[in-house]
Amino acid sequence: MRVEFVNPFIKSLANTFEVMLHQKVTRGDLELKSNFCPLHPVSGIIGLSGKATGTVVLSLSEIVALKAASTMLMTELSVIDDDVTDAVGELVNMVTGGAKAELEAYNLSISLPGVVTGKNHSVNFPSKVTPICVPFSTDWGPLALEVGLITSSEIPAASSDTTQQPQEVSS
Amino acid sequence: MRVEFVNPFIKSLANTFEVMLHQKVTRGDLELKSNFCPLHPVSGIIGLSGKATGTVVLSLSEIVALKAASTMLMTELSVIDDDVTDAVGELVNMVTGGAKAELEAYNLSISLPGVVTGKNHSVNFPSKVTPICVPFSTDWGPLALEVGLITSSEIPAASSDTTQQPQEVSS
Repeated sequence: MRVEFVNPFIKSLANTFEVMLHQKVTRGDLELKSNFCPLHPVSGIIGLSGKATGTVVLSLSEIVALKAASTMLMTELSVIDDDVTDAVGELVNMVTGGAKAELEAYNLSISLPGVVTGKNHSVNFPSKVTPICVPFSTDWGPLALEVGLITSSEIPAASSDTTQQPQEVSS
Repeated sequence: MRVEFVNPFIKSLANTFEVMLHQKVTRGDLELKSNFCPLHPVSGIIGLSGKATGTVVLSLSEIVALKAASTMLMTELSVIDDDVTDAVGELVNMVTGGAKAELEAYNLSISLPGVVTGKNHSVNFPSKVTPICVPFSTDWGPLALEVGLITSSEIPAASSDTTQQPQEVSS
């Protein structure tokens, strides 16, 4: 995966947390995920398709998920329920939406978010994609962002989704 | 979610298992997921976008994941490793690709699959979507399919991804 793909997501994450949640995020070291990205118990996952295709995972520790949802819903939440998973889905949607705007040449469209809950889960990307894993910390606790994205031309023909229609960049 | 959305996925799953894995699947009762779809430890997740947007989860028991990957790779696999998660990603990709062909009016495009592993994980959909959960059994063991898909016009404006370009149905 191209490293330049990840910066729009990092910027968008910082911006989303600052604007929506009034939280400053501090980035840890970016690493190519060989096989392990330390995920937290609540992970929002969203798919991207277009001239590049991939998956974005925003993984939050329980405390960050609860604080974020409480802030977004302006109420005090103390257990991971539907309100919290909805809020986490909305967060990964906003982070991805912000990044998408910067990657407009790829004409990306975003799927609905799914939110995976459960201790010790991990998200495995197709082995043709090497996702980049970025840990962050906030005053509330830790979170992680995992981005795996490849351009359509990098997808091996045998396993690609070939019905994607080629489109010209509209600018 | 419209129930007619789910049938192409059920057909495609049965077809994929029969053609690729020589396994007959038997469908259990289809149920609207209120809040719980009993998932198995290896779940392939794929996003859809276009004139409808959503998420598809193909969740396999460990034994089904191992047998399926062993069959696809023509080798005996006994632990859930990258080869197995790749195979599960490929399966959810094929199931979704087959269904997409039947839903061509929605001009769907498919993201890359992510594969979640971990006991007791669950996948939560946005509360505006009521996914349909379909359990299946095979001679190898159980699996489940979860499909949550809504047309773009059903997405509440406030939280939708509004940069999706409107397109005419091409037929």
